[in-house]
Amino acid sequence: MSSNMFLYWGSGSIPCWKPMLVLEEKGFSGYPNKKISFSDKEHKSEEVLKLNPRGQVPTFKDGDVVVNESGAICFYLENKFSDSGTKLLPGDNAERGRVLQRIFEVSNVDSNLITNIIHYRFRTDKDKLDHELLATKYESLRTELKIWDGYLASSGGYVVGSNFTMADVYFFPYIAFGVRLGLDLSKYPAIAAYYDKVKDRPSVKASWPPHWAEKPGDSTMLGSV
Amino acid sequence: MSSNMFLYWGSGSIPCWKPMLVLEEKGFSGYPNKKISFSDKEHKSEEVLKLNPRGQVPTFKDGDVVVNESGAICFYLENKFSDSGTKLLPGDNAERGRVLQRIFEVSNVDSNLITNIIHYRFRTDKDKLDHELLATKYESLRTELKIWDGYLASSGGYVVGSNFTMADVYFFPYIAFGVRLGLDLSKYPAIAAYYDKVKDRPSVKASWPPHWAEKPGDSTMLGSV
Repeated sequence: MSSNMFLYWGSGSIPCWKPMLVLEEKGFSGYPNKKISFSDKEHKSEEVLKLNPRGQVPTFKDGDVVVNESGAICFYLENKFSDSGTKLLPGDNAERGRVLQRIFEVSNVDSNLITNIIHYRFRTDKDKLDHELLATKYESLRTELKIWDGYLASSGGYVVGSNFTMADVYFFPYIAFGVRLGLDLSKYPAIAAYYDKVKDRPSVKASWPPHWAEKPGDSTMLGSV
Repeated sequence: MSSNMFLYWGSGSIPCWKPMLVLEEKGFSGYPNKKISFSDKEHKSEEVLKLNPRGQVPTFKDGDVVVNESGAICFYLENKFSDSGTKLLPGDNAERGRVLQRIFEVSNVDSNLITNIIHYRFRTDKDKLDHELLATKYESLRTELKIWDGYLASSGGYVVGSNFTMADVYFFPYIAFGVRLGLDLSKYPAIAAYYDKVKDRPSVKASWPPHWAEKPGDSTMLGSV
């Protein structure tokens, strides 16, 4: 069933990790794929560009259907294969509403963590960092993480309820990314318990960014959050 | 069917306009709602905060189900009422994949238009604007709009094919917002034809931001794009 699929992906990319988690959860382990090298600019290669003119990964096809945006791939796969493997969007409307709410709410984690801090730090020379500004960015991320710590403290073990859903597909990669860059989860006990459980899930282990296992991240990035 | 629903919204907010379009397309015209005033900070009122602790609009409930994120409301409504009014996500997998791809691809319009230009201009004193930087931002928006002009030139009249879908719900409000702020669509002929047609759609007219009809926008904002 997955033999007509093909995924181009890059190691450590959160937008790539999300559909990879869905593919694993849906039971498509071993789907045809190619890891591209960002440093060799392989996402700008002919091979990728002919499927994805934006030259980005993930780039995905399922037979003749090309779907490249991370969220689009996740929703596409869940709809087409709703009865395979893990059901990631509940059939019950109320429950589905709760999962959808958290899925889209993750954009707040993305903006606080990736846009505000990681992009700023990667794009600014170390001696030009505005530490006062950075302190407000860290504080804002702390506030955001506390919201999610509260959700997890009362949810039943996963982002929504007691089952792994698309909300976890969306949320977990940010936490793993944070931990790699020094995020101290002892300040967020419910997120810590969640991280410890989910990191050992087979779909997560199978899709863990390979270069993260090889070399550690810069733990000063988020060490004070 | 819509009597158990309630929407808090603000005039001119694109995240509010999207679910309002869905509600109209699904045939729920006249659904219970309250327009909040941003200048009076009504999105931070008790009434909104008890449903949406982030104090943002849209804030939406359907009976006991609270769904606040714009995209979450759109997907929730389409799933629950898939057979009412306009079908916004096609049943056919390949077609649905194409619609999903464009839905999530609209984030590129958002980042180029809203984050890069509108936020920068609103948050920077006029005499402190970096015009060289602004020129690169305008160029980047132009490149993005040309991509969508290309899509529309070959799609059959709407963002995907010849029917109004969720991809239009996501895309159209940005174009209307752009036009209000001086975007000259004569440079993007397929977008211009699309805008002229869609602006007169009943769902669009019914949900058009009321304050836009009352006073014009600052057309110098995007006049040179």
